[in-house]
Amino acid sequence: MTAAGADGYRLDELARRFGLTLRGEGARRIDGVGTLAGAGPSQLAFLANPRYAAQLAGTRAGAVVLDAASAENCPAAALVAADAYLAFARIAALFERLPAPAPGVSASAVVEPGAVIEAGASIGAQCFVAAGSRVCAGAVIGPQCVIGPDCTVGPQSYLVARVTLALRVHLGARVRIHPGAVLGSDGFGLAWAGMQWEKVPQLGGVRIGDDCEIGANTTIDRGALEDTVLEEDVRLDNQIQIAHNVHIGAHTAMAGCAAVAGSAHIGRHCLIGGGAGVLGHLQVCDRVTITAMSLVTHSIREPGEYSSGAPLQENRLWRRNTVRIRQLDDIARRLAALEKGPRP
Amino acid sequence: MTAAGADGYRLDELARRFGLTLRGEGARRIDGVGTLAGAGPSQLAFLANPRYAAQLAGTRAGAVVLDAASAENCPAAALVAADAYLAFARIAALFERLPAPAPGVSASAVVEPGAVIEAGASIGAQCFVAAGSRVCAGAVIGPQCVIGPDCTVGPQSYLVARVTLALRVHLGARVRIHPGAVLGSDGFGLAWAGMQWEKVPQLGGVRIGDDCEIGANTTIDRGALEDTVLEEDVRLDNQIQIAHNVHIGAHTAMAGCAAVAGSAHIGRHCLIGGGAGVLGHLQVCDRVTITAMSLVTHSIREPGEYSSGAPLQENRLWRRNTVRIRQLDDIARRLAALEKGPRP
Amino acid sequence: MTAAGADGYRLDELARRFGLTLRGEGARRIDGVGTLAGAGPSQLAFLANPRYAAQLAGTRAGAVVLDAASAENCPAAALVAADAYLAFARIAALFERLPAPAPGVSASAVVEPGAVIEAGASIGAQCFVAAGSRVCAGAVIGPQCVIGPDCTVGPQSYLVARVTLALRVHLGARVRIHPGAVLGSDGFGLAWAGMQWEKVPQLGGVRIGDDCEIGANTTIDRGALEDTVLEEDVRLDNQIQIAHNVHIGAHTAMAGCAAVAGSAHIGRHCLIGGGAGVLGHLQVCDRVTITAMSLVTHSIREPGEYSSGAPLQENRLWRRNTVRIRQLDDIARRLAALEKGPRP
Repeated sequence: MTAAGADGYRLDELARRFGLTLRGEGARRIDGVGTLAGAGPSQLAFLANPRYAAQLAGTRAGAVVLDAASAENCPAAALVAADAYLAFARIAALFERLPAPAPGVSASAVVEPGAVIEAGASIGAQCFVAAGSRVCAGAVIGPQCVIGPDCTVGPQSYLVARVTLALRVHLGARVRIHPGAVLGSDGFGLAWAGMQWEKVPQLGGVRIGDDCEIGANTTIDRGALEDTVLEEDVRLDNQIQIAHNVHIGAHTAMAGCAAVAGSAHIGRHCLIGGGAGVLGHLQVCDRVTITAMSLVTHSIREPGEYSSGAPLQENRLWRRNTVRIRQLDDIARRLAALEKGPRP
Repeated sequence: MTAAGADGYRLDELARRFGLTLRGEGARRIDGVGTLAGAGPSQLAFLANPRYAAQLAGTRAGAVVLDAASAENCPAAALVAADAYLAFARIAALFERLPAPAPGVSASAVVEPGAVIEAGASIGAQCFVAAGSRVCAGAVIGPQCVIGPDCTVGPQSYLVARVTLALRVHLGARVRIHPGAVLGSDGFGLAWAGMQWEKVPQLGGVRIGDDCEIGANTTIDRGALEDTVLEEDVRLDNQIQIAHNVHIGAHTAMAGCAAVAGSAHIGRHCLIGGGAGVLGHLQVCDRVTITAMSLVTHSIREPGEYSSGAPLQENRLWRRNTVRIRQLDDIARRLAALEKGPRP
Repeated sequence: MTAAGADGYRLDELARRFGLTLRGEGARRIDGVGTLAGAGPSQLAFLANPRYAAQLAGTRAGAVVLDAASAENCPAAALVAADAYLAFARIAALFERLPAPAPGVSASAVVEPGAVIEAGASIGAQCFVAAGSRVCAGAVIGPQCVIGPDCTVGPQSYLVARVTLALRVHLGARVRIHPGAVLGSDGFGLAWAGMQWEKVPQLGGVRIGDDCEIGANTTIDRGALEDTVLEEDVRLDNQIQIAHNVHIGAHTAMAGCAAVAGSAHIGRHCLIGGGAGVLGHLQVCDRVTITAMSLVTHSIREPGEYSSGAPLQENRLWRRNTVRIRQLDDIARRLAALEKGPRP
């Protein structure tokens, strides 16, 4: 990944700009970033995950961002950081090239009368904006997005492409939403009416706090009576399902394919692993970590790390052990009987 | 949630209209609905889930829909119902405000010659309708939907926005489909041809019965030879995956992220929990409930509730117990040996 | 499924064309394909899965593709194949009718200046192609696709409809992508910055090898520094999540709803079951099979079949056994103590 721009940045310039300690030649120029294994002499790499420590000795990178302890073993120039990953992320942003669409409404967009597009907003090709909705200044709506009725896109928010805000969705400032995401779709509310299901109207909306990020093909239903809420700085990966009336606290991050059922309340600063599930109407307190593919079946009142699931095994062993899970209560009772002995 | 309409409904009017027993002042006017915790004096709340019973005493709602037993403790006017949730759903529908698009074809839609749009159907902005497809009277196609070749959208069906019917999809009457759903995509059919995979043609279609509902970003593949079928009144939440040749019986409901593999046959009146899976070619009989994130690995012949999965535990405890799952067959054998005693 | 074309194919003609051995009347004409249970006298069925062997005796099919052993019991004409499923797939392809769009750019498509559409490519209705991207000769882009900046669609590739290539996605030849799929969206990279999350720029792209297939609503993020890579002939079903920097080896197939976390490396010729997960940074070697809904929590160095998960049980039994999983380490210790006996 090499920057389009001229001749990059001097290492001493980077050190000063990001508050890092430089070990090595400050005049070296960096014109891109890469991995320890892949970066070349004009590129910057980083070491944050101990898994990759063994790659440090052989790196061809021109410089490496890392912590003080690892810097001892660095064969290249070093930018020493208290948090190498964070420092690298900030430097890498210098080399990012993203589309920067011009403000204004694309000729191929359809904006209904009664929709408000503030000056400085950008409405991309083939977008649809319904009456009653507002796109604030500085917001960028990429191609083929649908902004349904009664929605707000906050300032500097960025809908990359093909995002759908179905109904009554309110985005704060600097919200970023990736393609295929659907917000404000009907919650899954059904009442059994004797002979068939009857749909429960979904009268609420969705409120997304400032600085949230929502992944590709993630879905967030609107509330039945009140709103589905993400507080500020919530980070959702791809293909996550958030049901109606869920409330997610600030700074919580969820990995791909996680799902939260209706009316569950997740605290602040939680980390929800990929494919994990939270059942409906539960409370999860602040600072809870749920590991991947675990199912939360009861409310969690204490911060900490929680898991469910059985271990990966070679299939033949798994088959033998799995049969025994069906006998586990029986096994426990027989063990207790033995302990009580004497046996007959 | 307050109705746009004038001054709402009198309680005695609601009681008469929905066949409920009124306790309290019939002249009180209701202009919206809310939760027990959130509703104000001109709003109607409900109590159906015992989890929320404790909120009844403190409610500020003008009236509450509930069952006869709970009505004893209701501090507000009560609308007593045999099924409080159903009664509330019906009343709440009075206060729903949804987009009601005009019939006709939007100027920005593309309708290929050979497609049939019946009078009274509405084709939204930027839709595409392919040759050989038909949209029946009263159907509403929201913005940016794709109706591929050889599809039918039945009368009064409603595709909210950005729905894709890829090929040979036939929707009955009053089918409702949420944004991002894809129906009629290729089934996942592969044959190994010695050096590479070879695609198995997917010659069937998808048939969706009357009154079905399909959630956001749900996918339903078309059949390989015959059709993938949902009977009437099947209700699918978001991000569900239905593989080719699956058959789902009437009135079955599936929660978010559930998945059914190819050629499985699910009965009528089943309830499939969120994230649950059903392996291919299995039969699940009528009136089966599968709890969340369970995997159905064999056919089910008896109605009832079925589950798989291990319990959520504090991570340190989980690690200790999980190691033991790998030893479970060994544990069972050692226990049996002890029982046989005498020990040496 | 009956072919549009005139009067079909003679059995002896099919046998010759596909290298099969014919038992029965070569002059019989076949004008379509079907299942053993559903095919009629002018249709061809097949038997490959032993589950359906019992249907052979009663089939009304005009002919059946099957292996030599089963052919003994075939009541109809037989086309004997070493691999009946593969042979059937090839014959069935004769009866496939798919849309064949004309080359050229649809009038309703938006192609930015600086995008290159090679002669012979087809750009469907309401597509968007960004500057800096190229669509090669023979590629077909169905309706409402988004081809973002710096993408390449290789020759003869087919994007069925509503596919999004967000940024820096490079498709090889003959790649097939189904509706709703999103490639090249931002990887989920976050660094904690003391008070809030900070986004880690995603500077890489996505490279998809020749002959890959990508299912509906599947998501493949672009890499953080290097590319996310699928080698040739990788086959992904619907709703699969591939995180940034994942590498998937040639000929690997993954069933619906599987997910691979960041920087994991999956080998060649692997089979990943539906809903299965692979944690980040792991290595899975060639020729590994993971069964449905299993979670891979450590690297796999040996080819073979691997599983995790607990068995499906009637709910009451499951509840009893599940409680015991929480006690499993205790049970194992108590058993060991008993074995050590004598008991006090």
